[in-house]
Amino acid sequence: MTEDSEPLGEFDRIARFFAPLAEGAPGAFGLTDDAATLPALADGREWVVTVDALVSSIHFLPDDPPDLVARKALRVNLSDLAAMGAAPYGYTLALALPKDMAEPQRWLRAFSEGLAADQAEYGIHLLGGDSVSTKGPITLSITAFGIGGPDRLLRRSAAKPGHDLWVSGTIGDGALGLRVAQGQLSVRFADLADRYRLPRPRVALGPLLAGRAAAGLDVSDGLVQDAGHIATHSDCRLVIDAPAVPVSDSVAELVSDDPELFAEVLTGGDDYELLFTAPQEAAPEIEAAGRDAGVSVTRIGRVESGAGVEVLDHRGAPLDGLTARGWSHF
Amino acid sequence: MTEDSEPLGEFDRIARFFAPLAEGAPGAFGLTDDAATLPALADGREWVVTVDALVSSIHFLPDDPPDLVARKALRVNLSDLAAMGAAPYGYTLALALPKDMAEPQRWLRAFSEGLAADQAEYGIHLLGGDSVSTKGPITLSITAFGIGGPDRLLRRSAAKPGHDLWVSGTIGDGALGLRVAQGQLSVRFADLADRYRLPRPRVALGPLLAGRAAAGLDVSDGLVQDAGHIATHSDCRLVIDAPAVPVSDSVAELVSDDPELFAEVLTGGDDYELLFTAPQEAAPEIEAAGRDAGVSVTRIGRVESGAGVEVLDHRGAPLDGLTARGWSHF
Repeated sequence: MTEDSEPLGEFDRIARFFAPLAEGAPGAFGLTDDAATLPALADGREWVVTVDALVSSIHFLPDDPPDLVARKALRVNLSDLAAMGAAPYGYTLALALPKDMAEPQRWLRAFSEGLAADQAEYGIHLLGGDSVSTKGPITLSITAFGIGGPDRLLRRSAAKPGHDLWVSGTIGDGALGLRVAQGQLSVRFADLADRYRLPRPRVALGPLLAGRAAAGLDVSDGLVQDAGHIATHSDCRLVIDAPAVPVSDSVAELVSDDPELFAEVLTGGDDYELLFTAPQEAAPEIEAAGRDAGVSVTRIGRVESGAGVEVLDHRGAPLDGLTARGWSHF
Repeated sequence: MTEDSEPLGEFDRIARFFAPLAEGAPGAFGLTDDAATLPALADGREWVVTVDALVSSIHFLPDDPPDLVARKALRVNLSDLAAMGAAPYGYTLALALPKDMAEPQRWLRAFSEGLAADQAEYGIHLLGGDSVSTKGPITLSITAFGIGGPDRLLRRSAAKPGHDLWVSGTIGDGALGLRVAQGQLSVRFADLADRYRLPRPRVALGPLLAGRAAAGLDVSDGLVQDAGHIATHSDCRLVIDAPAVPVSDSVAELVSDDPELFAEVLTGGDDYELLFTAPQEAAPEIEAAGRDAGVSVTRIGRVESGAGVEVLDHRGAPLDGLTARGWSHF
């Protein structure tokens, strides 16, 4: 039995792999107590909380590198915080590992190294956790904590007719990146596969949009579907000018070779960009927020009265068939 | 296909079974947004956070009633909050359900009814969640939020030589209740099985102990093992007078018939009582806290300088072999 395949009790696992991740967060008490505390906030700020669960074979592949699994799990949560306009602070982790795992310590070491890397990147800490056994696949859930201004949060229900519709970064990299990772598109576009494997949550932009933008969310289901969520919760109609949707050079090249791929760009998901609405007069502030965050922001449409999402082509004619695609995760 | 076996998308599941549980918590936004908010707290109070994961076949049985699974999951978290001296406020839920579940809607209905029952009992609300599929067993994790006074939290590291050692309620009901549930002890003691299936977290007592008691935790691993956690983190020795340990009438009868069971009472776990230390002069306040909370509190020993846990019999002689038992969950 090598060191890596030795079974480890819960306390050893926590002490060896997780307690070091809690250093620097005084309220985590080194993970030795029954609970952690969140520090009191100064006036006008509130704790923002989000939770995401990931299951092996559903949300990642069993042989995905454990450090990437850890970082993706963290980042999808940080993206949810950014979508509300909150700055990330820390997280708790619930982890269920298979009893019969071949090298649990090796997996845990890589997994905790991934968490450590992103803790450094985003200035966050582990606050608490639970580590259990399962007869099923690796299952983890992360609850992430951010800090926001209570009256300035971006809500899905805050879009109003007359608002501009904006998106950060580029759309479609995640969806076409998955195709690259699956070997369906050329490895020349490995940059897209990287983007799929490791989302870049817009943690700097989100808080800068708070108080400037109105409605907002992060694009995880797909641009058109997520626009639909804003439309539903705001009782509005969202109109997207397809040619205005920003794409990376790699996606532009792929779509130029195969125009059919454009539908996938608009509906494929896994972008983790911010989609938001703002009054027209806020445009200069939105552009300033993008510059300050180092992220491009692009006006891609508008909010009208009505319902649903309409996607228009370069002639202003509706692109049919898009809105019916993949409305649900499953 | 009956209604109960229809597959439900994530949005339908949330709207039908979980959004109603978020009514009454304004910061949950009806579960329609990417995150929830915790209200700002008045001076001198802080958010306290704890997380527990439960896996079918490990922490509960696949055919356990879903409402009891839900309530037990909630209650072990509320017990952790009480152990720190925090009053419960709300929780987030991450739920992974098997893709091939026979009647997912029926399970979800009963599960959410269990959550609703305990929300009413403890005055708490669902704040957010994630609902995913798994190829493995039912897996859930709950992150619970409580409110505590930052300078008055009960910490495992706060025991000092000279303190009294106290415990709430009765010890051993959970451990012997599991034996009843497994058919190893008479069904005459069904009250113990109920106690095993549905812990009674000391949510009223915990906050009343804050600022009066010093070290504290909830007894989940077993009285002796959990005393060991206080000893370790406080660099002290804990001495337990075995005859002083409070037991229910049912446990007293069982132990009287089979004295061997007493070791299981002391080490069996699943009690979810509070074990805490306090300066001797705080005894009247501790007793008043118990009266106010409607929970008995019993002095069962003392804190000395040294290390480890010693259990003494009625003659004051050490009971050997207890401290080596079941030190870990697995």
